[in-house]
Amino acid sequence: MARVKNIEWIDGPQDPAAGFLRLLDQTRLPDEQVYLDCTTIEQVWEAIRRLSVRGAPAIGIAAAFGCVIGAQKNQIVQAADYLATSRPTAINLFWAIERMKRVRPPTPEALLAEAKTIHTEDAQMCQEIGEHALPLFERLIGSLQTQDTPPGVLTHCNAGALATGGIGTATAPMYLAQERGLAFTVFADETRPLLQGSRLTAFELANAGIDVTLICDDMAAHVMKQHHIGMVITGADRIAANGDAANKIGTYNLAVLAKHHNIPFYVAAPSSTFDLSIATGEQIPIESRPAREITEGFGIRTAPLGIKTYSPAFDVTPNELLTAIITENGLIEPVNSKTVAVNLAHGSRELPPTA
Amino acid sequence: MARVKNIEWIDGPQDPAAGFLRLLDQTRLPDEQVYLDCTTIEQVWEAIRRLSVRGAPAIGIAAAFGCVIGAQKNQIVQAADYLATSRPTAINLFWAIERMKRVRPPTPEALLAEAKTIHTEDAQMCQEIGEHALPLFERLIGSLQTQDTPPGVLTHCNAGALATGGIGTATAPMYLAQERGLAFTVFADETRPLLQGSRLTAFELANAGIDVTLICDDMAAHVMKQHHIGMVITGADRIAANGDAANKIGTYNLAVLAKHHNIPFYVAAPSSTFDLSIATGEQIPIESRPAREITEGFGIRTAPLGIKTYSPAFDVTPNELLTAIITENGLIEPVNSKTVAVNLAHGSRELPPTA
Repeated sequence: MARVKNIEWIDGPQDPAAGFLRLLDQTRLPDEQVYLDCTTIEQVWEAIRRLSVRGAPAIGIAAAFGCVIGAQKNQIVQAADYLATSRPTAINLFWAIERMKRVRPPTPEALLAEAKTIHTEDAQMCQEIGEHALPLFERLIGSLQTQDTPPGVLTHCNAGALATGGIGTATAPMYLAQERGLAFTVFADETRPLLQGSRLTAFELANAGIDVTLICDDMAAHVMKQHHIGMVITGADRIAANGDAANKIGTYNLAVLAKHHNIPFYVAAPSSTFDLSIATGEQIPIESRPAREITEGFGIRTAPLGIKTYSPAFDVTPNELLTAIITENGLIEPVNSKTVAVNLAHGSRELPPTA
Repeated sequence: MARVKNIEWIDGPQDPAAGFLRLLDQTRLPDEQVYLDCTTIEQVWEAIRRLSVRGAPAIGIAAAFGCVIGAQKNQIVQAADYLATSRPTAINLFWAIERMKRVRPPTPEALLAEAKTIHTEDAQMCQEIGEHALPLFERLIGSLQTQDTPPGVLTHCNAGALATGGIGTATAPMYLAQERGLAFTVFADETRPLLQGSRLTAFELANAGIDVTLICDDMAAHVMKQHHIGMVITGADRIAANGDAANKIGTYNLAVLAKHHNIPFYVAAPSSTFDLSIATGEQIPIESRPAREITEGFGIRTAPLGIKTYSPAFDVTPNELLTAIITENGLIEPVNSKTVAVNLAHGSRELPPTA
């Protein structure tokens, strides 16, 4: 089954750089595959803000193409600074924008080439993350071979193809394991309030023919206790220098539950997700989302009118709860400032920004 | 503010026992307060099955009144056996039905008196649970007095007035603490898939003027880490002889998270919730709920068509994760077979069934 294109630059008829950005509107999934054609930076900003495009790597890629649109009107710096205000937590956004601001000369053509490079590199990083994570899958599958049911992998939110320029981060080993005919099953947390797990992860995995079972977030501990889960793997939105990882709210829940059940917990993320300018996760800004996403999540109101809510979009999982972080450079294990630095230094790509 | 009546027997015009059962349809909350008037046991069965009446104590009370309706047609035994098939996990259902079957003579009048006794006793048990739990609240509030924000209590699902014949079990100390002017705040887990936390707990507490903040289930660990939570308190649907407690799915999650954050975890339940016929929680049957409650939770589909789901309605929290169980007889602390037996033996009421 073909993967859905979530981010695509549509070349202009004469001049490729005079084209526009086509985004799959992920707020309409899984029911409808609707595309947003962005010809202004305001449209790109809005698409990021309202989560039509989401997932840390995908946000970076979309913003990079947004800079090309800004450059079409000679407003690369303004476009870059404006797009950087769309969402606060994912570091890839700022990383991609900084990279675009450094392009010389800042012509639409040169910027388009750089945005396409960012996109292609991200796809390559996903592939490499998958290759590094695959042995963990194989080990898991080997260890549970004697059981009746195939080994289960639990994931949260969507760190899938829809969140990246390639086969995803947390999902990368799933796609590769499937290619190689390994038997496994995925449990997808639905991920309240916005249900990226049910709307996106269950959608993209089922679409690809991977066996997936949808559960509610509050069922995770019960499923772990019943020995259905052999490993947990999620993505990340920003990782501090010591490996503390900010990711979709609920990830920290899972890390604590996995520890209690002696289940390995992995974060899969490209090096562009690291923010070496901050020492620990305590300094990562956490976005708050509006109450209506909880109280009117499904189109009808499911909570009393005017009820107080608290809705952090992300939480931070401390490094000691991570079995390993998987980057395109390999495994960071155990996770601490030293092992993070070594992993990133071994990379062939431009390092993320440091303070 | 007056409490909403969730269960009420409406006397017949000449003969009280010729009346019917009026239930608040909790599936319509918080938007609408609609009542179901049940004049047949089929209607009572259906109201229990579809969760119009829910909460272990409330189910028992509703079934007891259902037996009166059966007796109106001289079908007490058939009614009792039929109502016992409505839901499998809450032990109070079977406890109340057994108690009704033993009434002699099994006239509608005698049965109505017994059902009303069960109802009144439950209200009294809630009050006593609240009195026993209140010192825990006072201790919590004392220990956090120096902080800026009032101490937070986290609860899951609805073990409130709506789930019982009185002021609830987990909510009982909240209502009493409010009466005594203590400052505290409640965090209510929304409790997927059926959102009893947002639809019912947030509704009844806000309605009573208690400060309550609604969160998604996957936010609990983050809120605990931020030191907003001083204790967790939930109800239970069935408790084994060793204190292992079955309750709404997600309770076990919270117990593990509370342990990790060194937060005391309490279960509040009347003695009628204990099932001494089973040694441990492993033997408690766990009801599975239909996929559509996850995939089409509130009128619109939020998951791919035909996606596989797993939806246990309950989980079991092992006794070692419980700081204490609070019954109408006092605290069971630590929780084990011996302390459970001592607590129940001290009770003045009829003991729950044993094998």
